[in-house]
Amino acid sequence: MQVYELHGARGLQSVVASKRPEPVPLRGQVLIKMRAWSLNYRDLLIINNNYGGLSPDRIVALSDGAGEVVQVGSDVSRFKVGDRVSPTFSTTWIAGGMSANDLSTSRGGVVDGVLAEFVACDERHAVRIPDYLSLQEAACLPCAGVTAYNALFGPRPLISGQTVLTLGTGGVSTLAVQIASAAGARVIATSSSDEKLNIIRRLGASEIINYQTFPEWSDEVLRLTDGHGVDHVVEVGGGGTIDRSVASTAVGGQIHMIGVLSTGTLSPRALIPWRTLRGIMVGSSADHEAMNAMLCVHQIRPLIGKVFSFGDAVDAYRYLQSAAHIGKVVIEL
Amino acid sequence: MQVYELHGARGLQSVVASKRPEPVPLRGQVLIKMRAWSLNYRDLLIINNNYGGLSPDRIVALSDGAGEVVQVGSDVSRFKVGDRVSPTFSTTWIAGGMSANDLSTSRGGVVDGVLAEFVACDERHAVRIPDYLSLQEAACLPCAGVTAYNALFGPRPLISGQTVLTLGTGGVSTLAVQIASAAGARVIATSSSDEKLNIIRRLGASEIINYQTFPEWSDEVLRLTDGHGVDHVVEVGGGGTIDRSVASTAVGGQIHMIGVLSTGTLSPRALIPWRTLRGIMVGSSADHEAMNAMLCVHQIRPLIGKVFSFGDAVDAYRYLQSAAHIGKVVIEL
Amino acid sequence: MQVYELHGARGLQSVVASKRPEPVPLRGQVLIKMRAWSLNYRDLLIINNNYGGLSPDRIVALSDGAGEVVQVGSDVSRFKVGDRVSPTFSTTWIAGGMSANDLSTSRGGVVDGVLAEFVACDERHAVRIPDYLSLQEAACLPCAGVTAYNALFGPRPLISGQTVLTLGTGGVSTLAVQIASAAGARVIATSSSDEKLNIIRRLGASEIINYQTFPEWSDEVLRLTDGHGVDHVVEVGGGGTIDRSVASTAVGGQIHMIGVLSTGTLSPRALIPWRTLRGIMVGSSADHEAMNAMLCVHQIRPLIGKVFSFGDAVDAYRYLQSAAHIGKVVIEL
Amino acid sequence: MQVYELHGARGLQSVVASKRPEPVPLRGQVLIKMRAWSLNYRDLLIINNNYGGLSPDRIVALSDGAGEVVQVGSDVSRFKVGDRVSPTFSTTWIAGGMSANDLSTSRGGVVDGVLAEFVACDERHAVRIPDYLSLQEAACLPCAGVTAYNALFGPRPLISGQTVLTLGTGGVSTLAVQIASAAGARVIATSSSDEKLNIIRRLGASEIINYQTFPEWSDEVLRLTDGHGVDHVVEVGGGGTIDRSVASTAVGGQIHMIGVLSTGTLSPRALIPWRTLRGIMVGSSADHEAMNAMLCVHQIRPLIGKVFSFGDAVDAYRYLQSAAHIGKVVIEL
Repeated sequence: MQVYELHGARGLQSVVASKRPEPVPLRGQVLIKMRAWSLNYRDLLIINNNYGGLSPDRIVALSDGAGEVVQVGSDVSRFKVGDRVSPTFSTTWIAGGMSANDLSTSRGGVVDGVLAEFVACDERHAVRIPDYLSLQEAACLPCAGVTAYNALFGPRPLISGQTVLTLGTGGVSTLAVQIASAAGARVIATSSSDEKLNIIRRLGASEIINYQTFPEWSDEVLRLTDGHGVDHVVEVGGGGTIDRSVASTAVGGQIHMIGVLSTGTLSPRALIPWRTLRGIMVGSSADHEAMNAMLCVHQIRPLIGKVFSFGDAVDAYRYLQSAAHIGKVVIEL
Repeated sequence: MQVYELHGARGLQSVVASKRPEPVPLRGQVLIKMRAWSLNYRDLLIINNNYGGLSPDRIVALSDGAGEVVQVGSDVSRFKVGDRVSPTFSTTWIAGGMSANDLSTSRGGVVDGVLAEFVACDERHAVRIPDYLSLQEAACLPCAGVTAYNALFGPRPLISGQTVLTLGTGGVSTLAVQIASAAGARVIATSSSDEKLNIIRRLGASEIINYQTFPEWSDEVLRLTDGHGVDHVVEVGGGGTIDRSVASTAVGGQIHMIGVLSTGTLSPRALIPWRTLRGIMVGSSADHEAMNAMLCVHQIRPLIGKVFSFGDAVDAYRYLQSAAHIGKVVIEL
Repeated sequence: MQVYELHGARGLQSVVASKRPEPVPLRGQVLIKMRAWSLNYRDLLIINNNYGGLSPDRIVALSDGAGEVVQVGSDVSRFKVGDRVSPTFSTTWIAGGMSANDLSTSRGGVVDGVLAEFVACDERHAVRIPDYLSLQEAACLPCAGVTAYNALFGPRPLISGQTVLTLGTGGVSTLAVQIASAAGARVIATSSSDEKLNIIRRLGASEIINYQTFPEWSDEVLRLTDGHGVDHVVEVGGGGTIDRSVASTAVGGQIHMIGVLSTGTLSPRALIPWRTLRGIMVGSSADHEAMNAMLCVHQIRPLIGKVFSFGDAVDAYRYLQSAAHIGKVVIEL
Repeated sequence: MQVYELHGARGLQSVVASKRPEPVPLRGQVLIKMRAWSLNYRDLLIINNNYGGLSPDRIVALSDGAGEVVQVGSDVSRFKVGDRVSPTFSTTWIAGGMSANDLSTSRGGVVDGVLAEFVACDERHAVRIPDYLSLQEAACLPCAGVTAYNALFGPRPLISGQTVLTLGTGGVSTLAVQIASAAGARVIATSSSDEKLNIIRRLGASEIINYQTFPEWSDEVLRLTDGHGVDHVVEVGGGGTIDRSVASTAVGGQIHMIGVLSTGTLSPRALIPWRTLRGIMVGSSADHEAMNAMLCVHQIRPLIGKVFSFGDAVDAYRYLQSAAHIGKVVIEL
């Protein structure tokens, strides 16, 4: 079968079209005919040697995709042939809190990813796709969607009436806007472009801040919240935003930090008297299922920016790198 | 000033128009010129000698009202003359968990209530009314609204995408429908009348069950939830509903029980393998403020059924007793 | 190999010594040479047709045991030959909250149990045994220990300084005494015999109540707690104790109900103003591991009452049925 | 009466013995004859102009003390003459989460403290002292004890069997050792001196690390925890410890940061994949009461280092500044 492998971390040239034998589903596994994939900023970090020193050695690319079960191994009880499924981001984290063992088991990083015509995966590491979603839409969710969900619904979850701040228009942030809005939150979003902010507004943000116009955007957040600040920040971290995110946070508020993109440093004193900075990393199979159930109630669809064909996968990487887009970059077959 | 006192628990004749001297706000107190009140089913239980053996001895009636601050005592820092406020249900419970001391300190039961032209109350036991609410609307919230809020946002709060079951069209239930809907929940509501169910639907219920048509309504709840059951029941308890409420609850779900109305008995085995039955009783000043903030984001207005004048307060009791209504029974001045 | 199967639910005669082929570990499985087992009251309920209508059809008996890994299947990463392990109670519940799918997947009930010379089980459904525990001691934990742990450390966990009430001297209760005591709780324990109560006191109970002497033992609990009641009850349910358990509970307290044994009915009104009745059923693999880690810190050893040889397994059932014991009934090989 | 006032923030000379009229308890207040006080490192920060720009303008010094109720104002229901009480750290925060309003209402900072012969305080801002504690011991708790308690028992509280890291031998850290140990935690403590570490060991630490011997003490913490790290750090922050504290924390662990002392900066990336950094600031009246109840169960006594007479209060400040001590610096009258 056709796959894309990562050969080292040398930029776009690391992404190499290859052949592998079609996998056979082992005990407990389903074989998925993949139909759609999406890219995350993480995938750029990996090929650009900016992902914790990781240099992939011929592993299959990408964590996110969706397809159809075409064969099931022995002892499979959760799926049958024909089911539409997504592999989960992690190949070990099933439910509950993350454990140290789950650190190096995410797809497309240390272990094989999903940018292949067929993926065999353990049934506990696949989730059913809600009927209302297309496979392309479902393929946008395993990393970005679950991250946004886990950010907002952790140990002290978002509840209706609270205020959420999102930063920029990347995949996590746009899904966070949609999820938070559907949870009854008031959503304040930042971006660099009024055009993008209009899109964000349509996704559910009630207030928008152009950070080109307001470089001290935390002042603007405080102004919009009568000086209190927000209850939750989905801090995606590009470009040293952490200080302003903390400054935007109310007493008792939480900054959910999507770590892989975090840059800059923080004076911990800024967390006084009572702010919580919580590093997170995607989520479990159970989180993925809970997110799907929630999205389904609200019929939320991820925003797709541009779709590339399987043969043009490298172009998809290149397009994401250009950062011109809003909405997920998708590959289809 | 004019007040209504409760003289014993002998039905409607217990509600007696009386005169009392106008109170003077002491240190830490505000004096409120009351403008609107609402009745709760609890008020009927109290006068009908069905409230834990309580026989009121000339205490002022009703827990719920709203008005305007007309004078402030010394050391008052939270309010000023002209503020629109509601006294809170409890005269001791400020924040955090309820304590045993808070059991006998709610208004209109053991301590003086608010059905008076003026109420002097400690500033920690009054809350500011959101601008968008009328005083009549605000008067509907101290007992029923805070109860619905505390039911849904306790230690394991309602999160978006979960399913909530409400029973009937009383004040707690209608507010629970509005609050749950605004929190992104799917709401299933029961009632005995299609006319009431239409109103409930407009308040935010997505599915409705006429329990005259479906006496075994828990079967219908299970059918609507693909056999899983709901995540939360707001169990208001009239008429032995507890068994069906538990039967309607999913594994991991919670039944929030508004205790004062609870009748019937339950086999605890029905809570196996993992259901939680949680008795609650209204909430704290902090709960009241959090509810107000949440209502404000969604501009939720309590449903008012019928409005009586202050001079016709006894008629308001009588009307509530007739159970013909949907929406809160309000008294205005 | 030698196994004991359950043939129906006709009392002791249901427990039948049989032969089965020695299992081969499949992908993801370990093969365990079993060395020790323990019985739970649940095992009596099952054979006495008192377990939700369950009539076992030649399934292997018992949920609880311990042994040594003698072979590993392909793709096993968590264990190696020589590791001392216990199969977990559930064959599906790995971490997080229980789901409906986990209801009928516990060992020795619907699916094959562990009373066999060899057990092949998925590595995610086995846990490592702490070094300080003997295999006999470890065999006492999968059902009773995890139940006691899950009771005390759920969503609103026991914290130091709180008060815990345990009932009787069964396996769950004695372990709950040890665990709660090691968590810094004040433990009040009931039993019918002063001799047993002395043992319970040595396990960590600071106050003991002989319920023969104090049939209204909830009064005694209230007396010992200055009228407040306890923060947690581990309610094991034999003999209609639920009303007194609730009456023994403080405002804000929790009654953790081990459902399978629950009898009697409850007036839900007793949960007002704020008591929580929480049905539970054992726990997940992650709970088992967390319990082990905690026991290890405190070097807690389950109390073993009497040990039978593998050939005398039916006598072990008979002895448990006699209810004369305190401490776990163990089988060894 | 005799009091000590803070006149600006100019070091020890800011602490000025003065006279004030003896206060009269107003409505809702108790008048306390103070008998004992304790100093916190915060008190040095305040006089040394290192407390957020605060320059005290003749406010009474110190937050922590204990005494006896000698008079009660009207409407006081919680205390009577003769009760032994402590004023709470905050003069507004009663229970539940901190709010922005509680930021500038702590004693001895913006509002009058307690280093006076008599203190009149609202009964909701005083707590009863457990019988087993001396007034000197009780005087050690309002800031340091409540801080340690709130650190360990926040939204995701310490549970038995977890591992706690404490830093140094200041008041918060020594109390954290005692509290964590009594909660069934394994406690690892750092200090610069083997002599101090021996004392810490007697308070309940099971492992001790001399950070002079191990400047890279987080490596030692990881070694002691089999590479996992600890579940909780009580991060008191002097001297740029934050990086090593985070490096010492397990996946899923929490760093509870006592903000006022925090120095240095942190790379937020270090919180990935799942660590939580939580700024806290002392606690509420309810926290103080919960701590007292817990201490009482374990008969925990704070460690007193040296006692000064009321007339030598400035010497007490000087002694604390010398940092030679272990244990609280107390003033008595």
